[in-house]
Amino acid sequence: MSEDINRQVILATRPEGYPTEDNFGLIETPIPELRDGQVLLRTIWLSLDPYQRGRMNDAASYASPLRIGDAIVGGTVCKVVASRRQDLTEGQIVQGMTGWQTHAISDGRNLRKLDPQFAPVSTALGVLGMPGLTAYHGLFEIGQPKLGDTVVVSAASGAVGAIVGQLAKMMGCHVVGIAGSKQKIDYIVDELGFDSGINHKTEDVFNRLTVTCPRGVDVYFDNVGGPILDAVLEVVAESARIALCGQISQYNVQTAEGGVRNLRNLVGRRVRMEGFLVGQFANRSEEARQRLALWVNSGALKYKEDVVEGLENAPRAFIGLLNGANFGKLLVKVSDS
Amino acid sequence: MSEDINRQVILATRPEGYPTEDNFGLIETPIPELRDGQVLLRTIWLSLDPYQRGRMNDAASYASPLRIGDAIVGGTVCKVVASRRQDLTEGQIVQGMTGWQTHAISDGRNLRKLDPQFAPVSTALGVLGMPGLTAYHGLFEIGQPKLGDTVVVSAASGAVGAIVGQLAKMMGCHVVGIAGSKQKIDYIVDELGFDSGINHKTEDVFNRLTVTCPRGVDVYFDNVGGPILDAVLEVVAESARIALCGQISQYNVQTAEGGVRNLRNLVGRRVRMEGFLVGQFANRSEEARQRLALWVNSGALKYKEDVVEGLENAPRAFIGLLNGANFGKLLVKVSDS
Repeated sequence: MSEDINRQVILATRPEGYPTEDNFGLIETPIPELRDGQVLLRTIWLSLDPYQRGRMNDAASYASPLRIGDAIVGGTVCKVVASRRQDLTEGQIVQGMTGWQTHAISDGRNLRKLDPQFAPVSTALGVLGMPGLTAYHGLFEIGQPKLGDTVVVSAASGAVGAIVGQLAKMMGCHVVGIAGSKQKIDYIVDELGFDSGINHKTEDVFNRLTVTCPRGVDVYFDNVGGPILDAVLEVVAESARIALCGQISQYNVQTAEGGVRNLRNLVGRRVRMEGFLVGQFANRSEEARQRLALWVNSGALKYKEDVVEGLENAPRAFIGLLNGANFGKLLVKVSDS
Repeated sequence: MSEDINRQVILATRPEGYPTEDNFGLIETPIPELRDGQVLLRTIWLSLDPYQRGRMNDAASYASPLRIGDAIVGGTVCKVVASRRQDLTEGQIVQGMTGWQTHAISDGRNLRKLDPQFAPVSTALGVLGMPGLTAYHGLFEIGQPKLGDTVVVSAASGAVGAIVGQLAKMMGCHVVGIAGSKQKIDYIVDELGFDSGINHKTEDVFNRLTVTCPRGVDVYFDNVGGPILDAVLEVVAESARIALCGQISQYNVQTAEGGVRNLRNLVGRRVRMEGFLVGQFANRSEEARQRLALWVNSGALKYKEDVVEGLENAPRAFIGLLNGANFGKLLVKVSDS
């Protein structure tokens, strides 16, 4: 790969509802000379995540929206290919937020050095990265599962959900996952050890919840919102905790027709429903990462990566992610390490 | 009043949607002889409260449903008119849950002796009773208002809402109340000292919230659910707390058409929404009651009672309560003290 030209996937037009490939553009720009204090990074791995959809809207969210022409934001694992900094030498692998592009110039801020001996560096975007920390903090700090609790997680084979379910099993919970294909259900039950799975595309979620969660749901880790949240609200147990992590079912809805109807159960059953962002637990992220690595290395915690080759294929893969087409943590391999 | 005949308002038929007077029946039954250990109570005050609507449904709620023919449940203040117990003498005023009837025979359990010197005994059903404790615990334990927070409360002139708003003002908060008439808005602002009021029948709640809560809503004490909750969810601040106390807008809805659409803000703004029942704070209710009495007696906490005379008028008054026709804590005066 040339180190003279930066290829970027930019926001060409704002999506209305589900994004299409027309909303993205691919541009090439020359890479300028490095100045003192800068490094040139070449992207190896790019992480595709649902939150990126929110940044494409022209609306205040918990982060600023992208402008038309901006490279799409995203977490990356990169190699330092040129350096005018003391603390970063050529060949160093780092994690950053350099976005959907083949290269980036950085002043070194917000980069984290990765040790390939610690774990495969791609895991810094998955089980040992934002999705893993999201699962860990969301489950433990918001969900607070007790031994024997029934824990339900949606998008259960996804980057976050698969970890949530495995952590809940480790904590002695009865775990039910909701996902969108037989293959995904087989995976979470047969490979990851979930107690049951519910295929929301072919089964009635409410009915299956009543069967698989006979004592009600104590913890619901919600990645999807919408009708599945509503179904879980029908079967929440007394003093249940609902950790709201994402609402992927709603990200592409322009006018939410449905809405959530069963909130009254929150009152009668004294349920806490709480949204969170992984960043709020930043002061404990290193502890979480070390524990997750321990469990990955011992084999207690499994993870699955869904790898797409080539930056130019990121838009299509991202659209698939929003439709549940991925199977495991979705990564783009932008260049060879 | 004769002490030989008990008049009861019973559930005659189950309501579909809003109750009508046809759903209630008035029956008279002879009062049997007291046995050892029993007291005969004559109802002075009967409390009408929105939760009673839920008991009229044939559906599991946080309490068992009424059967057809049962007297409607309700909190009461009664006088002991005959006693075969050592601990309760004739003339003693007690608080109990003896329901919509003129008399009750009790074995003494679940009665609380009232001292008319402590406060007017009717307050045991209002500011110093379940509504007061609901406001106190819901605001302080769930809402956790900080100095300078913006606190919004719905059904703001009601038995619970009026106390919530005044307590929040005492704690140094900016307080906005939502209610359903100009008279109620004038009351909460001019008499109770709320900073602003929003008339949800004549004003756009969302627009008025943006004006009256320029820094967003830190605490929302929700008595109504439905579209007003949705409007507040549009303007919640980072790390806001929503105390779900009731959903009166939904109690008479048979199929919730609308639903709540703005839950995604719970995620992005890290909002906690938590339902509660006053009973969960029972171990601190005496402390709360003493504090509320202190504030009532000092004049810092005002209350308003809406008194209806005669048990036979309870059904009509209750239907009015569900439509917001009452103004203040709704009580039925069943007999003279």
